[in-house]
Amino acid sequence: MGMKIDILTLFPDMFKIFDQSIIGKAQEKSIIEVNTFNIRDYTLNKHKKVDDYPYGGGAGMVMAPQPIVDCIRTVKKNNKGKVIFLGPRGKTFNQNMARELSEESELIFLCGHYEGIDERVYSYIDMEISLGDFVLTGGEMACIPIVDSICRMVPGVLSSSESYTEESFYNGVLEYPQYTRPEDFEGKRVPEILTSGHHENIRKWRRLQSLKLTKDRRPDLFAKLEFSKEDRKLLNSDKFKDY
Amino acid sequence: MGMKIDILTLFPDMFKIFDQSIIGKAQEKSIIEVNTFNIRDYTLNKHKKVDDYPYGGGAGMVMAPQPIVDCIRTVKKNNKGKVIFLGPRGKTFNQNMARELSEESELIFLCGHYEGIDERVYSYIDMEISLGDFVLTGGEMACIPIVDSICRMVPGVLSSSESYTEESFYNGVLEYPQYTRPEDFEGKRVPEILTSGHHENIRKWRRLQSLKLTKDRRPDLFAKLEFSKEDRKLLNSDKFKDY
Repeated sequence: MGMKIDILTLFPDMFKIFDQSIIGKAQEKSIIEVNTFNIRDYTLNKHKKVDDYPYGGGAGMVMAPQPIVDCIRTVKKNNKGKVIFLGPRGKTFNQNMARELSEESELIFLCGHYEGIDERVYSYIDMEISLGDFVLTGGEMACIPIVDSICRMVPGVLSSSESYTEESFYNGVLEYPQYTRPEDFEGKRVPEILTSGHHENIRKWRRLQSLKLTKDRRPDLFAKLEFSKEDRKLLNSDKFKDY
Repeated sequence: MGMKIDILTLFPDMFKIFDQSIIGKAQEKSIIEVNTFNIRDYTLNKHKKVDDYPYGGGAGMVMAPQPIVDCIRTVKKNNKGKVIFLGPRGKTFNQNMARELSEESELIFLCGHYEGIDERVYSYIDMEISLGDFVLTGGEMACIPIVDSICRMVPGVLSSSESYTEESFYNGVLEYPQYTRPEDFEGKRVPEILTSGHHENIRKWRRLQSLKLTKDRRPDLFAKLEFSKEDRKLLNSDKFKDY
């Protein structure tokens, strides 16, 4: 068993999306287990309400503490993982966090909705993660790509040919340009070097394209790179300039 | 008609998730129209293949240019919007981009999969957006939250009580803490000021909490803030220190 993920949400059906992805296949192979818990099932309110007006006034509804906290307590009985809340105050998700979290055997995700959760719920949370600096309709929309990104790092989820370590962000650089057939597409040709069969030159060309793309599009990442001797040589040479 | 969104993907069923969200409701009200186009339907390959081995070797499969480009051409007949590719080289998505894109009447999104798209497809793309610095199994996982974030800014999608301008990232600060009933939850009480009925003090307290949270959790955002006279006064005063 690779990883058990329990998700607390008001919209469990949204997570059916995983059935169509690699997570669905990983569940069939028993590498990943994803369960959803409907927070609404845990409310003690006789009208099944889970939200209420904010103290102090203002627009929108706030998720009440009782249903969330009781749901967390139930889930924790069979899951010893961190309780992770998807929220705007968290550290912005990145590939390092994906890698670190993929090493856990159990995780619990809490998705907020409406104007957010009652502040007192924070005492029951271990970690907050933000997807980025933008507003979503609910934590579900952040949880889905984050779980996807974590799960694809769990050993066995991707086949060996898919689990490709040259992808963008793996090594702090953007991936080099990829080409496939036909060699000539509407007058646009594959760079000659890629059909040359000269593997060492191809490797160097690709590394240089990665470095150039990163410098051009993501100067912030480029500034953090530690260059190898070869990297410096490639960047200062005219040899692979043709791209 | 508010906005028309056409999505090009190999996994159109993933976008059924929108039926359970505000986008589903907005579609019923004819404010948003979301259509998916299966790139596989456009391949001329007799085995319906859409990908092939990369030139120059390496792991993984690359999406071939012909099916994507033919699909883009078909969609463009009835959609004059920008062609947006979800990819790692793009500018990182943020709330400003959500606001700008929500003012368009038509948009086209292209979701890549596998090891990415043939480089030559870039000539048919107007814009690339990245969800963040992490690897996903496919562009669909980025497209879903981005479309969610854009659509909630389209007038009429949220009710007036939901379209709340004090949320995190709207004004460059994190949102203040929210509380709802009960006043005492397992011994944790709502801050007294919120039940005081003193609206002006509540407003100031909330503003100070927003500023403090932003300073603490997101010093990068805090550094970019332009403080009002009141902000400076609040930050230097002892009056609302109690939180």
